[in-house]
Amino acid sequence: MVHHASAGATMNDIAAAVGVSQATVSLVLNNRGGSRVAAATRERVLGAARELGYRPNAAAKTLRDGKAGLIGFVGDAVASSPFSGRIVEGAQARAWDDDMLLLTINTGGDRRLEDAAIESLLSHRVIGIVYAAMYHRVLRVPDALADIPSVVLNSEDAAGRAHAVIPDEFAGGAAATQELIDAGHERIAMINIAPLASGLPAAVARHRGYLSALEGSGLQAVPALHIEGDGNPDAGYRGALELMARKERPTAIFCANDRTAWGAYQALQEVGIRIPDDVSIVGFDNQETLAPFLRPGLTSLELPFAEMGRRAVELLLSGSNGESAAELVACPLVRRGSVSAPTEEAP
Amino acid sequence: MVHHASAGATMNDIAAAVGVSQATVSLVLNNRGGSRVAAATRERVLGAARELGYRPNAAAKTLRDGKAGLIGFVGDAVASSPFSGRIVEGAQARAWDDDMLLLTINTGGDRRLEDAAIESLLSHRVIGIVYAAMYHRVLRVPDALADIPSVVLNSEDAAGRAHAVIPDEFAGGAAATQELIDAGHERIAMINIAPLASGLPAAVARHRGYLSALEGSGLQAVPALHIEGDGNPDAGYRGALELMARKERPTAIFCANDRTAWGAYQALQEVGIRIPDDVSIVGFDNQETLAPFLRPGLTSLELPFAEMGRRAVELLLSGSNGESAAELVACPLVRRGSVSAPTEEAP
Repeated sequence: MVHHASAGATMNDIAAAVGVSQATVSLVLNNRGGSRVAAATRERVLGAARELGYRPNAAAKTLRDGKAGLIGFVGDAVASSPFSGRIVEGAQARAWDDDMLLLTINTGGDRRLEDAAIESLLSHRVIGIVYAAMYHRVLRVPDALADIPSVVLNSEDAAGRAHAVIPDEFAGGAAATQELIDAGHERIAMINIAPLASGLPAAVARHRGYLSALEGSGLQAVPALHIEGDGNPDAGYRGALELMARKERPTAIFCANDRTAWGAYQALQEVGIRIPDDVSIVGFDNQETLAPFLRPGLTSLELPFAEMGRRAVELLLSGSNGESAAELVACPLVRRGSVSAPTEEAP
Repeated sequence: MVHHASAGATMNDIAAAVGVSQATVSLVLNNRGGSRVAAATRERVLGAARELGYRPNAAAKTLRDGKAGLIGFVGDAVASSPFSGRIVEGAQARAWDDDMLLLTINTGGDRRLEDAAIESLLSHRVIGIVYAAMYHRVLRVPDALADIPSVVLNSEDAAGRAHAVIPDEFAGGAAATQELIDAGHERIAMINIAPLASGLPAAVARHRGYLSALEGSGLQAVPALHIEGDGNPDAGYRGALELMARKERPTAIFCANDRTAWGAYQALQEVGIRIPDDVSIVGFDNQETLAPFLRPGLTSLELPFAEMGRRAVELLLSGSNGESAAELVACPLVRRGSVSAPTEEAP
């Protein structure tokens, strides 16, 4: 079937063989035709390309001999972030399943670099672009992404145009709190990772989840038991000391990330309060280099980075460009040793 | 000069214009000629390609209009490792300086995936490949890399062929120990990250540096003060407890990574031994999410990941393929609060 290919066919050869325009052939071979090319035409073009042995570039080569095509991956800092590298891992694993490679660019959040990066990705004929953020927020998606299938990963498009894949922060916050309620706690504090007024989705939605779980169990949310924090261990340290100085101490703390929980551990150990005997703690993120190594190991909600990366590439490959709904990925609870029933207290 | 380019020249056009074979043109345009093509011929081919407006693929497009070319980056797990993402960041930053993009692939150490990955990178006409390891070791470099400029990053080529960029573990181990000697310590223990018999370069060379610094100051190395460990916090925890149970306690510990130091902190805090008042500690790696957040902050030697990534790309771009010497990158000392002078001891 492919033996008459050695001279190398052009797009014009394919157009002549199929009876369509060269522009249509180009759209199909570069995977950019979308709904503009009928499925039957697309099949005929691809068939002719295979039969004629068309191979002007690497993308077309994929058709011929199974070598990998490219998916663009633009991150604001994702590959250098200590905790979101698994996004890349998940995205790449899914891409490999379809014989695709990731062409990865970190922009450090620089808009001009971003424009250049996207232009370069387009020149390398990527079939689509995953636009990934280091932390979950609402952001302005570059205009250039309108020209190509794209998915926003770990953030939401402020304009509501691009399809987004984000963690289910609300359900995670509720599950963390429910774990403490189920253990018998009633006086449950929360040390958050940012002020609610910041609008940071992780802070706002995890807090809503916390309130929802309390309400669902008929418990009263005490505003003084919510400390806003900043996501660093120092804030967890100070927050825990502040909570322990209260007349009515909480018996449990939901720390909205593991680094905050780490600081709370440091504070409680310093003042001789035992975890979980005296105070139970649940974290969030399930950082693989931190949560298992605290003493005791920290019960936490996992940020499903690998799954999010996998899902983003899957959405690209399935051609779901242009849908505006954000897809929520569940954050599984990982139990370790930081939660137990509250002890009987002297009044 | 480029106005007669619109129809698109082929490699045969260039070969005819220059008076060389099409194979030679292919070698030059794909940056794979190495020493097989004379420099003068290479210049004439590139000149003709520019003049005729040759552009069969993205790599050639680079020549014509300044869009980014590609450097391959194959990592065994580098992008998903929490601590070596900065290698990618440094490599990419250096690549950008020359208008190049990184095409990144993680193989998870799977040899078959590695072969496929390298083949795919070649099909995308990368100008060279950085082959990066998550941790420093001696490894067998894939044969396919012999066909293209390549640099081994954070590991050494067992066959001694490929140019390598590695951290200067020996000098780092010596500097860590010297920092404790300079503070006045004489009884300095070391908790290592692997048995010396493993041959792991970081464990062996950091230990040699430790011995060298002791010897240089006329101090006796006590074999019983070297604990082999495994690089995890638990080993640091157990090692520190073991050292503190000795009749003649050390007044200082060089922990051969920060995670080991973290475990030592946990142990010492549990038994009421203060850092640095009772025992001084120096770590290694300077993990940005760990060392600054221990209480007190951990003095550590930085693994220069970004600089190593930068340097590897620089070597590729400078065309130093084929040299076998390993280039050592210095590990800077970062001082925090974990070292002080030893206190007067009761005998």
